[in-house]
Amino acid sequence: MRTIRKQTGHFLEDFRPGHVYRHKGGKTVTEGLFTTFTEFAMTANPLAKNARYARAYGFQGLLCPPGLVMLICFSQTVEDISENARANLEYIDMRFGAPLYVGDTIEVETKILGVKSSASRPNLGVVHVQSTARKNVGSQGEAIVLTWQRKVQVYKRDENAELHPGDVSPDPVACELVLPPYDRARDYKSLAHLSSPDSYFEDFEPDTRIEHSRGRTMTSEHIHLTAVLDNTSQVHCNQFMIDQDPAQYVGGQLIIFGGIPFVLCLGLSSPDVGDNALGDIVYPTGRHTAPLFAGDTVFAATEITGKRDYPGRPDLGVLETRLLGHKFERAENAKSDDAPPGWKKTRIFELERQIAVKRRSHYT
Amino acid sequence: MRTIRKQTGHFLEDFRPGHVYRHKGGKTVTEGLFTTFTEFAMTANPLAKNARYARAYGFQGLLCPPGLVMLICFSQTVEDISENARANLEYIDMRFGAPLYVGDTIEVETKILGVKSSASRPNLGVVHVQSTARKNVGSQGEAIVLTWQRKVQVYKRDENAELHPGDVSPDPVACELVLPPYDRARDYKSLAHLSSPDSYFEDFEPDTRIEHSRGRTMTSEHIHLTAVLDNTSQVHCNQFMIDQDPAQYVGGQLIIFGGIPFVLCLGLSSPDVGDNALGDIVYPTGRHTAPLFAGDTVFAATEITGKRDYPGRPDLGVLETRLLGHKFERAENAKSDDAPPGWKKTRIFELERQIAVKRRSHYT
Amino acid sequence: MRTIRKQTGHFLEDFRPGHVYRHKGGKTVTEGLFTTFTEFAMTANPLAKNARYARAYGFQGLLCPPGLVMLICFSQTVEDISENARANLEYIDMRFGAPLYVGDTIEVETKILGVKSSASRPNLGVVHVQSTARKNVGSQGEAIVLTWQRKVQVYKRDENAELHPGDVSPDPVACELVLPPYDRARDYKSLAHLSSPDSYFEDFEPDTRIEHSRGRTMTSEHIHLTAVLDNTSQVHCNQFMIDQDPAQYVGGQLIIFGGIPFVLCLGLSSPDVGDNALGDIVYPTGRHTAPLFAGDTVFAATEITGKRDYPGRPDLGVLETRLLGHKFERAENAKSDDAPPGWKKTRIFELERQIAVKRRSHYT
Repeated sequence: MRTIRKQTGHFLEDFRPGHVYRHKGGKTVTEGLFTTFTEFAMTANPLAKNARYARAYGFQGLLCPPGLVMLICFSQTVEDISENARANLEYIDMRFGAPLYVGDTIEVETKILGVKSSASRPNLGVVHVQSTARKNVGSQGEAIVLTWQRKVQVYKRDENAELHPGDVSPDPVACELVLPPYDRARDYKSLAHLSSPDSYFEDFEPDTRIEHSRGRTMTSEHIHLTAVLDNTSQVHCNQFMIDQDPAQYVGGQLIIFGGIPFVLCLGLSSPDVGDNALGDIVYPTGRHTAPLFAGDTVFAATEITGKRDYPGRPDLGVLETRLLGHKFERAENAKSDDAPPGWKKTRIFELERQIAVKRRSHYT
Repeated sequence: MRTIRKQTGHFLEDFRPGHVYRHKGGKTVTEGLFTTFTEFAMTANPLAKNARYARAYGFQGLLCPPGLVMLICFSQTVEDISENARANLEYIDMRFGAPLYVGDTIEVETKILGVKSSASRPNLGVVHVQSTARKNVGSQGEAIVLTWQRKVQVYKRDENAELHPGDVSPDPVACELVLPPYDRARDYKSLAHLSSPDSYFEDFEPDTRIEHSRGRTMTSEHIHLTAVLDNTSQVHCNQFMIDQDPAQYVGGQLIIFGGIPFVLCLGLSSPDVGDNALGDIVYPTGRHTAPLFAGDTVFAATEITGKRDYPGRPDLGVLETRLLGHKFERAENAKSDDAPPGWKKTRIFELERQIAVKRRSHYT
Repeated sequence: MRTIRKQTGHFLEDFRPGHVYRHKGGKTVTEGLFTTFTEFAMTANPLAKNARYARAYGFQGLLCPPGLVMLICFSQTVEDISENARANLEYIDMRFGAPLYVGDTIEVETKILGVKSSASRPNLGVVHVQSTARKNVGSQGEAIVLTWQRKVQVYKRDENAELHPGDVSPDPVACELVLPPYDRARDYKSLAHLSSPDSYFEDFEPDTRIEHSRGRTMTSEHIHLTAVLDNTSQVHCNQFMIDQDPAQYVGGQLIIFGGIPFVLCLGLSSPDVGDNALGDIVYPTGRHTAPLFAGDTVFAATEITGKRDYPGRPDLGVLETRLLGHKFERAENAKSDDAPPGWKKTRIFELERQIAVKRRSHYT
């Protein structure tokens, strides 16, 4: 009997600048997916929890929060782009478009923008990609839900294989946040008790850092969550692979899929920053600065970096922020202002984030 | 950059007798939420599992079992009332009203009935509250789904803060179990094989104690489950907080949210006691008598304390019971009649429980 | 107070050849159940992920993949047949019928075909059963979704009880795979990028063994998953029972419900073998050859054993395969060709499997 060892996903030498992958699968948003991922991260925005509220704001029903949109769309690209990756290096220009609802089906494609070898590690290199997620909207065709670039460190299948290095330009992608119009006839005021009283646009001041109060301990649940998202990267779910050669892998153990701390930080910040947002507009850049493992507790902070008007929407403002995630690690003799004795604080995530926030003047 | 440390939830000194909180968020029951919480606890009543059966009984579709109703409604009150609690002390007069279905949206409000300081622990006190959960029923307005009181031990933000002690009366709340009428034209008999043959009203005798056969081991899944319920209390999900000062927290580890053993006990008892119930009527009182931790196995027993007619419904009877939960703990040299050698049995939960149970005479 | 110790499930001495159990409960497929179990196992077939694709193929919507059909139907039989079992020995002639969708309700019945005592272990014996799962299809009556036989090793309640040994014949059950017709008017080609390019009928050669690339580590999530399926067998979820007498139980620890590795192997194989299948036809035989525990990583391989035409469907072929599951265990000084040094490979599962696979000629 002949044996074939199947490989899934691509390796560094497979990528060619300019090539476009139309990803397999696609994903229909069910109420199961919605519930699991909206709430595991303590998301507080009532648009994602309370259908009465969401409809009163002009949405079709419960709105997928930005973290869920990101998880679903991003995960569709994993098999082709990062199943054989070591780490995700950077998110770039992640822009939100049409709202995503239960029942919608997402399909995604990715263009290879760049391929680069690694000077220090001959079995690794960096791939730079641009991905766009669309949903079907019945007979009306399709709508862009999310577009983004990312850089990812990918293994070579064969250390001696030749690469296809180079760079091409990203495509212009028409993707802008779609929001229901403000409607004076609606009784927004009667819903005001359902969101935070102190997270309206007027409440924020640039040069403020908000330490969000909650922490959330991650468990081995991450393996299940990652599978449910169709994220097939083996560094998140294949303990035997790690056990054979721990030194080859970040931390020598299963690393939690970066989308998880990404969404946890969004969720932990939401009572203070996202509760009165109608949508996230764009994440100009973001990165994971340390790995997250089962047992770690995630905390988040938000720096307010700027405020501006939202063009054409006097009821909204644009809040410019930096979302920061951190965890604490045991460190004997450690002494610092931002951790208790015997612990050190480790930054795990940072994200530039622009949010469309309601003005108190129009909604209360 | 100015830093703000956000606090979520209230502390003992924030509560004033008579004040009413209209809780944020609200919660729409999705099929994801329904499935996760109906079945993790081994609920056996076909009304919550089999839509054909539920419709044949006159319900709109799958019926949220009483444990799920309790989890959803109760959790909506956590941020305001018990995010900064040490322990939940007592459930009082929990009454069920309209049936809860997938698609319904729950919103909850809570009145502060009493505030009391603790004689022995200056950083703690007790808050007594009355909460009511309503669902929207389209153009017909809203319906009460659950109302209850509870007493909860809450931390002070500042040990020296002045309290607002005192008591006010609970509001009268019109909340009675709503059931579809008995209809002779329906063919209940043809569905009788789908529920237990020996749990009809006629089968129970007062002064009987039923030891339910199944056990269910809880895992760290509780952290995820608690987040999905919007229960934000940090003692359930913030391991770092516990690690900094274990002595301050019950058991020195993450404690499982009391709603979990509450619902587990209901589920474990359901093949014997709840399988032929049309609904739970009222829980006059209940309490957690020991904490539950990941790794513990939960068992349940039911004492039948009384039986009476259900006013206006000859097809039903009211079963008065005490639901008891327990676990076993290793205890060297322990010897007792109700645990194997080397173990002791620990009561974790008790609940007075009145149930509307079908009579065999009318349904088989 | 009188005490009753309830027992759920039957014991070896309760079974009589020829007796038919109509199982309690029944199960409506919700979107929660669908999502949890379709994707925890990394299922890749777009019929189960992408509603646009499934509808374009003539299905009503997202199609429950064969693994989920098996899990739901099989679990309905556990309380009556195997709640008090030690191990499931063999699956026989498992045949698929009508497609299963979200919203459908499954009800199951089981005929006892044989009862046999164990020569070597007086507290155990083997029960042979035939089960059939039906779904309600509105006013049109019902449709068979799955039928199968299995042999299961069951404990006696009382070691000295008399058995009812013997054998009866299985019933003929009309259960054949129901598929939407091939329709030239449909634009299948435009969907071809959503499934694997190399898993069409033409791509397979008999006498080939395909080693699937992915592994999936199981965690204690199995306890929760098993409960959500209504599988009440205590060896999967009652750690205290195991702790009292570990030698009595397989592996001396909680064993993972066999349906889990069954479905994991189907999922791990799906990118290579199941991605372009329209359905699974029959599993003539299958068995678990070693137990699976939390912490184990599951791998799968498929042997192509035969190919033949699908009667009346020139667009399809029947692929005859053997699906194999394995894990690796630490074994000092072990040396073999199929495991790294210090490890041995353990077969955990094998399943004869016939699949209806699309021909490239008709779909691309």
